[in-house]
Amino acid sequence: MKYEESGVNIDKANEATRSISGFVKSTWGKNVLSEIGHFGGLFRVPQEFKDPVLVSSMDGVGTKIMVAQKAGRYDTVGQDLVNHCTDDILVQGGRPLFFLDYMAAGTLEPQMVVDVVKGLGIACEQNECALIGGETAEMPGLYHGDDFDLAGTIVGIVERSQIIDGSSIGPGDVIFALPSNGLHTNGYSLVRHLVFDELKLGVNDTVDAFGCTVADELLKVHVSYLGPVTELSSKVEVKGLAHITGGGLYDNLPRILPEGCGAAVQKGSWPVLPVFTWLQEKGSVADEEMYRVFNMGMGMLIVVDKSETGKIPESACGMPVYRVGEITSGRAVEIL
Amino acid sequence: MKYEESGVNIDKANEATRSISGFVKSTWGKNVLSEIGHFGGLFRVPQEFKDPVLVSSMDGVGTKIMVAQKAGRYDTVGQDLVNHCTDDILVQGGRPLFFLDYMAAGTLEPQMVVDVVKGLGIACEQNECALIGGETAEMPGLYHGDDFDLAGTIVGIVERSQIIDGSSIGPGDVIFALPSNGLHTNGYSLVRHLVFDELKLGVNDTVDAFGCTVADELLKVHVSYLGPVTELSSKVEVKGLAHITGGGLYDNLPRILPEGCGAAVQKGSWPVLPVFTWLQEKGSVADEEMYRVFNMGMGMLIVVDKSETGKIPESACGMPVYRVGEITSGRAVEIL
Repeated sequence: MKYEESGVNIDKANEATRSISGFVKSTWGKNVLSEIGHFGGLFRVPQEFKDPVLVSSMDGVGTKIMVAQKAGRYDTVGQDLVNHCTDDILVQGGRPLFFLDYMAAGTLEPQMVVDVVKGLGIACEQNECALIGGETAEMPGLYHGDDFDLAGTIVGIVERSQIIDGSSIGPGDVIFALPSNGLHTNGYSLVRHLVFDELKLGVNDTVDAFGCTVADELLKVHVSYLGPVTELSSKVEVKGLAHITGGGLYDNLPRILPEGCGAAVQKGSWPVLPVFTWLQEKGSVADEEMYRVFNMGMGMLIVVDKSETGKIPESACGMPVYRVGEITSGRAVEIL
Repeated sequence: MKYEESGVNIDKANEATRSISGFVKSTWGKNVLSEIGHFGGLFRVPQEFKDPVLVSSMDGVGTKIMVAQKAGRYDTVGQDLVNHCTDDILVQGGRPLFFLDYMAAGTLEPQMVVDVVKGLGIACEQNECALIGGETAEMPGLYHGDDFDLAGTIVGIVERSQIIDGSSIGPGDVIFALPSNGLHTNGYSLVRHLVFDELKLGVNDTVDAFGCTVADELLKVHVSYLGPVTELSSKVEVKGLAHITGGGLYDNLPRILPEGCGAAVQKGSWPVLPVFTWLQEKGSVADEEMYRVFNMGMGMLIVVDKSETGKIPESACGMPVYRVGEITSGRAVEIL
């Protein structure tokens, strides 16, 4: 009996590992001290911090991965993952240092692995983040057919005195929003059920409301807000940042609000993307449910003091900035 | 249409998240600056390092997870994962700082989530590692029945001048081994195929050679070598450390050997555990294949200069230390 008979091919896994080394190394700067094939990744802590704090986050792509699989398009989910994680640490003031990924499948198809890592590499380069390690696991029996899963961890850094935690937020502060470009990485279980099961659409069908195919719309890459938030932070004191992911506005904005603070967000103050209007109509989804599941066109919220609002530009890094509401002395997030 | 109809229950996920906070917080020391529910985990870089280097590794549990599922025992796989990751950074001299986990399932059963996190918490406490973040993903359609997967990332630290990289290893150096307690986290696809498919054994069947049930043997927790390696490092200069995981002795020892170095390991110099003898016999597995798939009773190898061998104690932290071979000027790892 040989190991290959039980469905695992160690040599094939090693082959894929070798072929991705180009994408991986393109993301490395001078702080990476390890080589591919070492047990762990070595990253030197940048010397310019007085009291450095590491900010870390782990996430998956959710069932967006099943849309990628249906479309046979594997080079976008890695970008989704890195950008999502970047945004998750950005809200506390963290800037990316390095990233590690976990990819699991029943059978590792080398081309798929290469495409996924290519996506990770593209986004890591854009976010100045070193792709320093990862695990590629072949698990026949747990993953069926061409099912696969992808998760990753980002580690970033922030000067302790520069941590953004929302603690200075108070009633009267103003909420600005940066736009999403679509679903980002949330709500895909609902979307897949509606689009594929109920409406029987295929990934290559064109939907007029989208102006593109189902795959093109549903696989739009999660936006990284590193650039625009960095630009805004250089102009105003940012009191709080909220990344609008699973749980939507209702669950994510309260994560940064101090006791005794609520928020009022004004409908119509930012553009709700056509994909959301279409989903709500086709699925007869209630308004509140939409705002709990989807980002509704806002990917990142920024809270600033009322006195600073004049310093907020109309756009940052080419991305429009919308004034969408204010902090209240209530307890709830209200969408009016 | 509501989100729950597509199989995702956000409130239930939140409930599980709340109930595990006790296990999580028990692992936190003074360097954790964040709270549960923040977007990212905040960990202050310890101040006592001159030129701190972060050592990180990401891993999964492999299909050992399917044995846990079969046995309905969920509190050991988290320990496997943390200990495995600890050993992976230990070989470069890294000591754990913090850990993040990713757990994915079709439906999140709160009790299962709690048990998995309990295991993570136990091992994190033992390795003085803060369980600082994680993602718990409910993905109906990707994971079937009670299938689930678990992966994690460890981040540790080492003084730059103390990094262990094997570069000073040369012919004549001596190889010592610390024992494993069983399969650890490798070879489970082969084992499951043999034990469950070929031999038709159940998890609760007792096997004489094991002296316990199939579940008890196959779910023995991966050993953390943090304690014994720390003790040995205080007594001798450690030139190299190799964690024997997937690929066995043949693939893992070469990862730390400089060009022009091989190794000769002497059979009979350490006890091969009964589980391996039994597996080889029942599965008619060739010797070389056994050493490529399994740890064969050695979980960690330590390379020291010949002149230092007298300083190696018979045991470290209660764990026996075996002298198993030496570095050669050949190219291959030979098991004689």
